[in-house]
Amino acid sequence: MAEKQIWQKIGESFIQEYYNQFDNTNRMDIANLYSPVACLTWEGSPVQGREAIAAKLVGLPFKRIKHVITEQDFQPTMDNCILIMAFGQLQADDDPPMAFHQVFMLKFQDNAWVCTNDVFRLGIHNIPV
Amino acid sequence: MAEKQIWQKIGESFIQEYYNQFDNTNRMDIANLYSPVACLTWEGSPVQGREAIAAKLVGLPFKRIKHVITEQDFQPTMDNCILIMAFGQLQADDDPPMAFHQVFMLKFQDNAWVCTNDVFRLGIHNIPV
Repeated sequence: MAEKQIWQKIGESFIQEYYNQFDNTNRMDIANLYSPVACLTWEGSPVQGREAIAAKLVGLPFKRIKHVITEQDFQPTMDNCILIMAFGQLQADDDPPMAFHQVFMLKFQDNAWVCTNDVFRLGIHNIPV
Repeated sequence: MAEKQIWQKIGESFIQEYYNQFDNTNRMDIANLYSPVACLTWEGSPVQGREAIAAKLVGLPFKRIKHVITEQDFQPTMDNCILIMAFGQLQADDDPPMAFHQVFMLKFQDNAWVCTNDVFRLGIHNIPV
């Protein structure tokens, strides 16, 4: 099996850390994974800046959440960023599991890879009839 | 209602043109929407370069296809690119409709906005049980 590319390793580490922090630790700490001027689009609503993003994530209306990642794709970009698309299921409190997909762009800033762009969508409206 | 941002207008035009070309015209022409060195990850398989991407899309095993977009999100990036996440359903020939999601990154090159990164996934493996 071919050695993984460095951007794939960085992407995999980010995904593991992101969802681990989201599910298992103080959700406020997830702010550290974002660039100070990062953009989040959460179910179509734009949120700008690290603090606003953390506040948005902390304020989501559930106590417990668990993400299970089904697939994750990684690509390098021309501007030395890393594009990630992840999808899977999440379960909030005792609700039924829901499909979701999420895109991240990572950039190397101040000696760390941080998220500059994040787009999240639930898959609940995307079931063929 | 607020005036749309320029990056949103560009993104919406791209999405409309991309799926219109994919569904209704010679699929080979879609190559013109990609940068010469664009990356595509198609259901986890990497394809590099405009010609290889067009060949991949032309070679997909169906005669007719129709995409219906449910949601599309757009973000500007720090490097003056535009990040797009689209999801919806597609129907190939007489198969049942399938959910899909697709990410594009657009960059302004040689006086045009072209796709430098494209990640496509069907949603068929992402149904909560």
